[in-house]
Amino acid sequence: MTDKLPTTPPTGMRDVLPDEVELRDLATQTIVRIYRSYGFRRIETPALEHLRLLTSGEGGENEKLIFKVMKRGEELKTALERGADELADLGLRFDLTVPLARYYAHNHARLPNPLKALQIGPVWRAERPQKGRFRQFTQCDIDVLGLGDPIVEVELILATSEALAALSLSGLTVRINDRRVLAGIARACGFGDDRQGSFFITFDKLDKIGRGGVIQELGATGHEAAAVSKFESMLDAIDPKTATLDSVLKAIASGDPDVAAGAAALDAIIAAVTGALPVGSAVRFDPRLVRGMGYYTGPIFEISAADYPSSIAGGGRYDRMIGRMLGRDVPASGFSIGFERLISILEGLPSARVSVATATGERVALVVDAGAADLAAPVRVAQRLRRDGLLVSLEVRRKNWKRQADELAAHGFAGWVSYNDGEPWRVRSLARPDGGTR
Amino acid sequence: MTDKLPTTPPTGMRDVLPDEVELRDLATQTIVRIYRSYGFRRIETPALEHLRLLTSGEGGENEKLIFKVMKRGEELKTALERGADELADLGLRFDLTVPLARYYAHNHARLPNPLKALQIGPVWRAERPQKGRFRQFTQCDIDVLGLGDPIVEVELILATSEALAALSLSGLTVRINDRRVLAGIARACGFGDDRQGSFFITFDKLDKIGRGGVIQELGATGHEAAAVSKFESMLDAIDPKTATLDSVLKAIASGDPDVAAGAAALDAIIAAVTGALPVGSAVRFDPRLVRGMGYYTGPIFEISAADYPSSIAGGGRYDRMIGRMLGRDVPASGFSIGFERLISILEGLPSARVSVATATGERVALVVDAGAADLAAPVRVAQRLRRDGLLVSLEVRRKNWKRQADELAAHGFAGWVSYNDGEPWRVRSLARPDGGTR
Repeated sequence: MTDKLPTTPPTGMRDVLPDEVELRDLATQTIVRIYRSYGFRRIETPALEHLRLLTSGEGGENEKLIFKVMKRGEELKTALERGADELADLGLRFDLTVPLARYYAHNHARLPNPLKALQIGPVWRAERPQKGRFRQFTQCDIDVLGLGDPIVEVELILATSEALAALSLSGLTVRINDRRVLAGIARACGFGDDRQGSFFITFDKLDKIGRGGVIQELGATGHEAAAVSKFESMLDAIDPKTATLDSVLKAIASGDPDVAAGAAALDAIIAAVTGALPVGSAVRFDPRLVRGMGYYTGPIFEISAADYPSSIAGGGRYDRMIGRMLGRDVPASGFSIGFERLISILEGLPSARVSVATATGERVALVVDAGAADLAAPVRVAQRLRRDGLLVSLEVRRKNWKRQADELAAHGFAGWVSYNDGEPWRVRSLARPDGGTR
Repeated sequence: MTDKLPTTPPTGMRDVLPDEVELRDLATQTIVRIYRSYGFRRIETPALEHLRLLTSGEGGENEKLIFKVMKRGEELKTALERGADELADLGLRFDLTVPLARYYAHNHARLPNPLKALQIGPVWRAERPQKGRFRQFTQCDIDVLGLGDPIVEVELILATSEALAALSLSGLTVRINDRRVLAGIARACGFGDDRQGSFFITFDKLDKIGRGGVIQELGATGHEAAAVSKFESMLDAIDPKTATLDSVLKAIASGDPDVAAGAAALDAIIAAVTGALPVGSAVRFDPRLVRGMGYYTGPIFEISAADYPSSIAGGGRYDRMIGRMLGRDVPASGFSIGFERLISILEGLPSARVSVATATGERVALVVDAGAADLAAPVRVAQRLRRDGLLVSLEVRRKNWKRQADELAAHGFAGWVSYNDGEPWRVRSLARPDGGTR
C-alpha cells in the first residue's frame, strides 16, 4: 500500500450526501415538470467551451473566474514555447447563457422557432472560497430565443412563479423594470450613453449603500456633476414605495420611442401576469431594479419569497448577445432560478423533507443472516415487496442487531423484515432516532 | 459588432437536442426508479478532482486521457517557473469509481454502512476523436461499499437487469466469472503472480484474435513457454460453450482456498439470480470473461441484450481500491451501465419514442395574434389546459400560418388552439409531417 491519497474534494467544491441529493432531485423534477407544462424543453451543452468564446466579453466579471483546461499532446509542447497565455484552449463554462447563445447559433436550423429552452446543470467559477459560495454550483435557466414579444416575459414569469410555488414557497413578489426605462432616466439626467453601464452599476447599490452612498460614488467615478445632481433630484420619483410607471415616465419627460416601448412592454406584462400568479403572490413595477449583467436590453425581473430577503430568481431580455455568434440579432429573454439558494431555503422547510419522502418512497431493510446458504428465497420476498411499491434493500444481519437497527433508522429506513426468524415475514417499524416510529 | 465567435462545441463534445434530451431523461428516470427500489441512493461528487488522486494508478489507461485544469493566480506564476509538470493541480474525472472511493473515504462516518450508491453523471476523456466516441459522456454506476457478501452481486445484477428490462430491452444474458478463478487458471498454468495482469490482458482478447492469436501474443509478451503451452492445453476446458464451473475447477485442480471462495461465490450468485431475472433473461458462468480494469478482486459480470453484440453493462468486485484512500480495506462491488450505448440502442427502438411521448405529455400551441393587446385572456386559457395535463406553449401567429403549423407539427406539437378566431376555443390536431395526425 502506497501513501494515503488526498480524500478532500478540491477547494470550494463539495460532495453531496444522499439526503441532499434526494431533495435536489425533487426540486429539479418539480421545476422540470412545471417548465415542461409551459412548453419548455430541456437542452444540454458540454461543460467545456472554447476559451475564445468564454472570454468574448459577454460574461462580465465571470470571465476572470474561468477554470482553464490545458492543451494536450503536441499542441501543449508548442504552446509551452510561446508562453503562459497560449497554454489553455478550453474552459469550464461559468454560466449557461453564453453556451446557450452558442448552441442556438450552431443548431438553430434544427431547433423550433422560437426555442423555449430549459437548462439545469453545473457551472464553475474560481471564486475566492467563502461560506455558502461554491466553485461548482447548479444553475437552472429558461430562455425563449427568437421571439421579441411581451408574451415571452409573461410565460417566463408565470412558469417560474408556479415552479417556486409548487416547491411550497409562498408570498412570492415579482419585481419588474425595463432597461429602456432605466436608460431613459440616465439620458434625462444627462449621463452620456457611454456612461450608462457605470451609472447602472452604482445605481444597483441603492439598497446597499443608500442615497448618499450612491450620489457620492457617482461623483467619485467621474460622472458629470450636473447629471449627478439631476439624478439626485429624481430619487424621490423612483422610490419603489411610491413610484408608479406613470410617475417615473413623467420624471423622465422624454418622447424617446425606446422609453415608450419599454413602458408599453411593462404595462402588457404586468396586466397579463396579475391575477394569473399563484395565490398570495404579486407583481409590481420597481424602478430601482437594475440587475448586474451588461447584456440586458429590455424587461428585467426578479422573484423573492416572503421571509427571505434576497431574490431567488432573476432574468431579463438580451436581444443582442446571439447576434455576436450568429451574425444576425435574435431576440432573447430568460429567467434563472438561484438553484443553490433555493435548496438552502428548502432544507429549512419541514414540508420539503416530507415531500422528498413521499416522492422517493419508503425504504425497508430485508435482513438476511450472514453466510445464508439460500439467497433465492429472500430475493423472492424482496421482489414481492418491491411490487407493492416499497424500496427494499437486502442487508446482512450484524452481530449487534440493536445497533444495526438504530443505524438503519438514522439513515431513513422506515421498517425491516427478518427473513430467517422462523415465522411468516412481515414488515416491522423501525424506531426513529428521536424515539418515534415512522 | 466584432468578429463572429466560434459556435461549434469543442472537438469530440456535442450539443444535445431536445428530442434526445427527453429520451435521455426517460432512461435516467427509469434507471433511478428501479435502482431506488433496490435501496440504492444517488450521490454526487464534483466534476473536478485533485490531479494527484486521478493519477494514482487506479485509472489504468484512462489516466493518460485527463483534461487538466491550470492553476490560478499566484500559484500559476510560481508554477510557470517550475516547468510544464507543475502547471495543473486539478483534472476532470475520467470515471465515477475513483471519485466514489474518495467520497467514501472522506464521508464514510456520515454514510449508511453498507453504502448503496447510485451515480449518474458526465465524465471526460481526451480520447482521439472517432465516430460514436465522445470526450464528454455519461456514466451510470451502482456500487455497494462495506459488504463482502454474494448478496451484493445478486442485487447489483438483478437491479441492473430489471432497469434494462424496464427500458424494453429483452433477451438479457448475464455472464459471470470470478477473478479468483481466473487467477487459479493462471497459477495452474504456471504464470507468476506478477505476470497475471499481462496474462489477463491477452486472455481478454480471445473473442477478438482467436486461440492462435492469444497463444502467439502470450509468447510475444515474454511469458514462459511452459506456462503458455499448459494454458493452450486448457483452452478446451474453458470454452464457454461447453465449460461448467466444475469442469474449470477440475482443470485447475488446485486446493487454493481463494479459488474455492471464488467458486462458492459464483455458485451462490447464480443460484439466487436464476429465476429472479426478468422474463426471457438468463445468467451463465463464462470462464473467459476477464474485464479490463486491474482493480477487480472477485466476481466480475456483464449483461448483453438479444440482437446487440457487445455488452451494455459491466462490473465486478474491487475490495482493495478504497484502502488506498482510507487506510483500511473496504469491500466494494459495482455495476456500470454503458449509458451512451444504451441511448443509441433506445434511439433505434420505436417503443422508446412512444414511451418518451407518454412520459413527457402532449404539447399544444396556444396561438395568439401578434401585438394582441389583451394577453390575460389567453393566459387564462393556457392555465386551464395545463390543469388538464397538456403542455401548453403560447405562440405568436406568424404571417404564413400554414408553414408555422407544419413547423409546430415537425417539432412534435400534437395540437393547437387559436385564441382569436371568434369562436369558443378548442384544441385541434396538427397534421404530422408524414401526413397523419397525432
